[in-house]
Amino acid sequence: MGLKQPFLDPISDETTRGPRNLITDVPGVTVGQKTVNSGSHHTGITVIQPTQDNLFRSKLPAAAHVINGFGKSTGLVQINELGTLETPVVLTNTFAVGIAETALVKEMMAQNSDIGDTTGTVNPVVMECNDGDINDIRDVFLTENDFRQTLNDTHTDFQEGTVGAGVGMSCYDLKGGIGSASRVITIDGKPFTMGALVLSNYGFMRDLNIYNIPVGKKLAAFNAEKKDQEHGSIITILATDIPFNSRQLTRIAKRASVGITRTGAFIGNGSGEIVLAFSTGNRISHYPKSELTMQAAISDDQIDRYFRMTVAVVEEAVLSVLTHATTVTDRKGKPRQSLADALTAYLAVHDDSDLKKLKAQLGL
Amino acid sequence: MGLKQPFLDPISDETTRGPRNLITDVPGVTVGQKTVNSGSHHTGITVIQPTQDNLFRSKLPAAAHVINGFGKSTGLVQINELGTLETPVVLTNTFAVGIAETALVKEMMAQNSDIGDTTGTVNPVVMECNDGDINDIRDVFLTENDFRQTLNDTHTDFQEGTVGAGVGMSCYDLKGGIGSASRVITIDGKPFTMGALVLSNYGFMRDLNIYNIPVGKKLAAFNAEKKDQEHGSIITILATDIPFNSRQLTRIAKRASVGITRTGAFIGNGSGEIVLAFSTGNRISHYPKSELTMQAAISDDQIDRYFRMTVAVVEEAVLSVLTHATTVTDRKGKPRQSLADALTAYLAVHDDSDLKKLKAQLGL
Amino acid sequence: MGLKQPFLDPISDETTRGPRNLITDVPGVTVGQKTVNSGSHHTGITVIQPTQDNLFRSKLPAAAHVINGFGKSTGLVQINELGTLETPVVLTNTFAVGIAETALVKEMMAQNSDIGDTTGTVNPVVMECNDGDINDIRDVFLTENDFRQTLNDTHTDFQEGTVGAGVGMSCYDLKGGIGSASRVITIDGKPFTMGALVLSNYGFMRDLNIYNIPVGKKLAAFNAEKKDQEHGSIITILATDIPFNSRQLTRIAKRASVGITRTGAFIGNGSGEIVLAFSTGNRISHYPKSELTMQAAISDDQIDRYFRMTVAVVEEAVLSVLTHATTVTDRKGKPRQSLADALTAYLAVHDDSDLKKLKAQLGL
Amino acid sequence: MGLKQPFLDPISDETTRGPRNLITDVPGVTVGQKTVNSGSHHTGITVIQPTQDNLFRSKLPAAAHVINGFGKSTGLVQINELGTLETPVVLTNTFAVGIAETALVKEMMAQNSDIGDTTGTVNPVVMECNDGDINDIRDVFLTENDFRQTLNDTHTDFQEGTVGAGVGMSCYDLKGGIGSASRVITIDGKPFTMGALVLSNYGFMRDLNIYNIPVGKKLAAFNAEKKDQEHGSIITILATDIPFNSRQLTRIAKRASVGITRTGAFIGNGSGEIVLAFSTGNRISHYPKSELTMQAAISDDQIDRYFRMTVAVVEEAVLSVLTHATTVTDRKGKPRQSLADALTAYLAVHDDSDLKKLKAQLGL
Repeated sequence: MGLKQPFLDPISDETTRGPRNLITDVPGVTVGQKTVNSGSHHTGITVIQPTQDNLFRSKLPAAAHVINGFGKSTGLVQINELGTLETPVVLTNTFAVGIAETALVKEMMAQNSDIGDTTGTVNPVVMECNDGDINDIRDVFLTENDFRQTLNDTHTDFQEGTVGAGVGMSCYDLKGGIGSASRVITIDGKPFTMGALVLSNYGFMRDLNIYNIPVGKKLAAFNAEKKDQEHGSIITILATDIPFNSRQLTRIAKRASVGITRTGAFIGNGSGEIVLAFSTGNRISHYPKSELTMQAAISDDQIDRYFRMTVAVVEEAVLSVLTHATTVTDRKGKPRQSLADALTAYLAVHDDSDLKKLKAQLGL
Repeated sequence: MGLKQPFLDPISDETTRGPRNLITDVPGVTVGQKTVNSGSHHTGITVIQPTQDNLFRSKLPAAAHVINGFGKSTGLVQINELGTLETPVVLTNTFAVGIAETALVKEMMAQNSDIGDTTGTVNPVVMECNDGDINDIRDVFLTENDFRQTLNDTHTDFQEGTVGAGVGMSCYDLKGGIGSASRVITIDGKPFTMGALVLSNYGFMRDLNIYNIPVGKKLAAFNAEKKDQEHGSIITILATDIPFNSRQLTRIAKRASVGITRTGAFIGNGSGEIVLAFSTGNRISHYPKSELTMQAAISDDQIDRYFRMTVAVVEEAVLSVLTHATTVTDRKGKPRQSLADALTAYLAVHDDSDLKKLKAQLGL
Repeated sequence: MGLKQPFLDPISDETTRGPRNLITDVPGVTVGQKTVNSGSHHTGITVIQPTQDNLFRSKLPAAAHVINGFGKSTGLVQINELGTLETPVVLTNTFAVGIAETALVKEMMAQNSDIGDTTGTVNPVVMECNDGDINDIRDVFLTENDFRQTLNDTHTDFQEGTVGAGVGMSCYDLKGGIGSASRVITIDGKPFTMGALVLSNYGFMRDLNIYNIPVGKKLAAFNAEKKDQEHGSIITILATDIPFNSRQLTRIAKRASVGITRTGAFIGNGSGEIVLAFSTGNRISHYPKSELTMQAAISDDQIDRYFRMTVAVVEEAVLSVLTHATTVTDRKGKPRQSLADALTAYLAVHDDSDLKKLKAQLGL
Repeated sequence: MGLKQPFLDPISDETTRGPRNLITDVPGVTVGQKTVNSGSHHTGITVIQPTQDNLFRSKLPAAAHVINGFGKSTGLVQINELGTLETPVVLTNTFAVGIAETALVKEMMAQNSDIGDTTGTVNPVVMECNDGDINDIRDVFLTENDFRQTLNDTHTDFQEGTVGAGVGMSCYDLKGGIGSASRVITIDGKPFTMGALVLSNYGFMRDLNIYNIPVGKKLAAFNAEKKDQEHGSIITILATDIPFNSRQLTRIAKRASVGITRTGAFIGNGSGEIVLAFSTGNRISHYPKSELTMQAAISDDQIDRYFRMTVAVVEEAVLSVLTHATTVTDRKGKPRQSLADALTAYLAVHDDSDLKKLKAQLGL
């Protein structure tokens, strides 16, 4: 649902928020989540299901872009070669990637008896962040069954914040997790939607900037502890029904970095920042009846409008993470504060009208 | 000299500005400029000379990064293959690139009788922005001689703003041009420098953001005219004596985009945003005496410090452009206002304490 | 016209040679050449005109691929960002690139009064090899006028071998130059064409292999002189009316390397091996009337057929260079032997039935 | 051990074969394999252990190159960002990748208690081909324990052919699998080694070419059955003690494609052709004591020598696969013939002196 009280959005003033302000505003897209949040286990699964029909038989144009490659996502090599997505996208913690892959392959085989038999294999897409600061990631906990259940339980409504793959994530040293937002734009008289979902686990507290308020600098001065190095990441999924081709989706995906850094970060060394973008505006058949077809296409001429839209949904998705996340006690028994709790604690001591106003505007 | 009144620099708090706050604070680097600013001709040349000895015989580790490839720079293919820079870097307008290349090749031949005779050729690096909004770019005006003179007249001190290749450039629809900044950092007890020089010709006025003041939104509302599409670009040159290798310089170059977008832009479609980074920390011989050598190296472990430094010098170089540039009458007789003049006009009508304070802080 | 006596073509047995066996078999493609071959000047120009209408206003899908980036071609950055070609392609020697660029920009401005005035600039594509072994490349000899004349004098018939940009080129230490070939394939019942034109200046004599005859090893043993390092290159232009998009053209372009190395080379360090591929199967308007359109598309499903076709036309184009080139006296007065002359000299001394047969089959 | 009867090697005449003619001739490199070959299960594991000490704490310069990205290898994104390899390399079938990843992560955690606790995570490198033509790949059979045992049981001697990850692989429609070769070269008076190990599962029978004998064309005409599409791949691991940096290793890795295609293939659409290259010539500490160090380096000046060496070891590794592999009955009960058996069958019917001689030379 994006921000509780959406700010004016100067970067993309010709778009409006979608009805849910979620990636699921893109027709056909659903999301499923599994949350584990007890003892030393603070982790989970978030699945993005791009279509409601057989995605392997009728693939989507897609592109992946690596902003900073300190990450372990799988499936990107083939996406960039063939320009297609043929499985749902699974998000989870770094050390559960292998299990997620196996589960996704088995689920795809269950749905497609031809895979690995009369046709080739399937390219499972699993993306990850390291939730090891909060979660006991060394105790690999999620099972194939957890993933398969989540793959089969997706909806247009879903929670943000400390849920799914986001349970153990941090963002700007505050509690991070899952966030989403959407925008609608008019093209040649017809409405089209773009949605973002982020798994946000990046940033140093001192850099956090919310709509030009350098809130992180104040909070960092107030919170004694400092980290040396980032072990985080941010995964961004971009969905749209605008009929971009794979080359254009790469260009779109690149603009996610602007949305990400507008909240203050600088693309840290340890941050695996990876973007996956797909379009539901064309389908690519696994068993094409003919080689030649006609496909919907969109000119690059006005692509600035979609670049602005991309920046807007990604920035709001990150802020949505921060406003929805709730404080979690990490594997060592220390609280990882939500932005709400951090602001409350700060304002209990400081009379800061800017932050007081920001807190209200964010609905915290 | 960067900003006249440097702001506190939250992104890189462990660095200090270099003595000149220019790219020439990196030992060995000099800059030369030729300015043409009369009639319908508003264009010029800026040359970055990376070393004071024979660069062809003793090359530098280098890397180029394309943020957005709507640009016509030359020489990047070979830099990325071999990881070396072997000529000075020439900046000029888009349609003077060919002449600049020819001049640079002839100058390199004049200095090296082996080129094209007993050894191979040379890889001229020419980078450009389109100054056609202000300059009559169709009247290709600069000559080979202009370029060769500029190549032979470089210094550690140089002007910023409406000079050299920057004469006809715009930035956020205000007067753009040349800007530079530098930072010094301590590594293993020794000081090292990084400097940026930008040729800045990008951005929409409404997006301009200076240190969290959305100044562009106010100025754009005040200035009736709007452009539809960007034909601009921004070229960034990063110089350092930190002994980064070519792979690391690529990573450094990628962070320039953070500095660029921190002032509000979103990497527009029409903007050719290209970064060239080189290090003087090692030399690569054209005629090596042996194949095996030892080279200075730096770990990626603390590279976040240098990423922050990069963001800081690039952001300040862009702001330095805006604060140094002066109003120019374009080829159609209309003024392209400097930031100073735009703020003055705005403040003559509006009582805006934020912008009044900003103007004073920027020394305008 | 490709090989004088075409061999059986095992790599692509479902295609046939086009009527001219030249790149100009692709409808709309024409070629122009200027040859300079006297004194110490052995150089020239080859122009590929992809369409007979206004290419700037109605661009072509295109892609560039760098096999090995020791080269100075221009225009590739923008082609790979936007996926379009908007000018003819000019081939020449390395140090004439700047002059060619200037000429091409001026010619495009002459044909399009909007360029640099009411619209943005234009992206000139100039590709090159170093003919400095044969030509006195330091004496930059070609003029803007030479290039503009050649741009305006293109035809469907053209010569191969020691002509145009190929006058001063070497190939496997034999005389190199220009070569071309084409193939026709049936897709969904309709014929489509792919053509290659190469500017071939690469390879060590001892590696030359023609249809499984290691002719280079024999010739190299017979010819005392050996070179240490390669300063050559090979430029490949691929044209087709199959409606590939830019991503697919990249995949096609990558297969050129297979054609190139099938004649024995190994992608040498000093060889700038660059491929430009374009399709006339769709047009991209500079001033689109609407954002959304329908475009012809082709599935990747049977792309192996087109990969084989690509390998076939590139391999034959290289061999066509060798069979058409004629011996030239280089700038130092030494002959650079054609394959024909080298075989004749060898066979005058050796009774080698394999090479005798090969010579006959090649029509030499 | 490479070829049983090594041919003269024209592409790299200044190198000699290593003592084992295996990748393990590079000091420190060992290989482990698990072979499953019964019922419908024809699959396995091959592990390359690059060093005998703690690779996570003391990483190796590395690079990955994607020739054709129809593949599901993991870990490449981070290798190309950081230029380092920090785990052994595991090869297996496509659908076992997830299990292999999980096993490798657990093994790395067992050896390094800091991973996922006091330091970040680890980047597991798993590479794969699809053995589904021969193996019942849908029945995911290999276990985490299989992988962990193989990781802990590596040696300098190992088998080639129908072993390890290669059990179910095909090569040119003949029996494929594991192959290896090595070469020694002298640099500045000292010997250095390069070794290749391939998991070979690519190619159409009709294209097979062995040292200029188009054996595949004859065999394909003799064997009725034809495949439509390739579902194969080839993974190439290159190891060396030459102190290449990551950029140079990328250049080296690119030349693997020349070795691969010299045996006749054309880089098919369905073939995931991926190369991983690493050097033991420098180590990169996970916990560096200082930022600045000195590292061994090698000039690009003579890199052609190493390119030739690369082509030679890769080509011989592929041929080694074909000469060592033995006929296997596939999951449908049909034999996948070895080259030896295919030649024997052919020669029983045809009196072909070329193939008879080739068979003898190959020691088959």
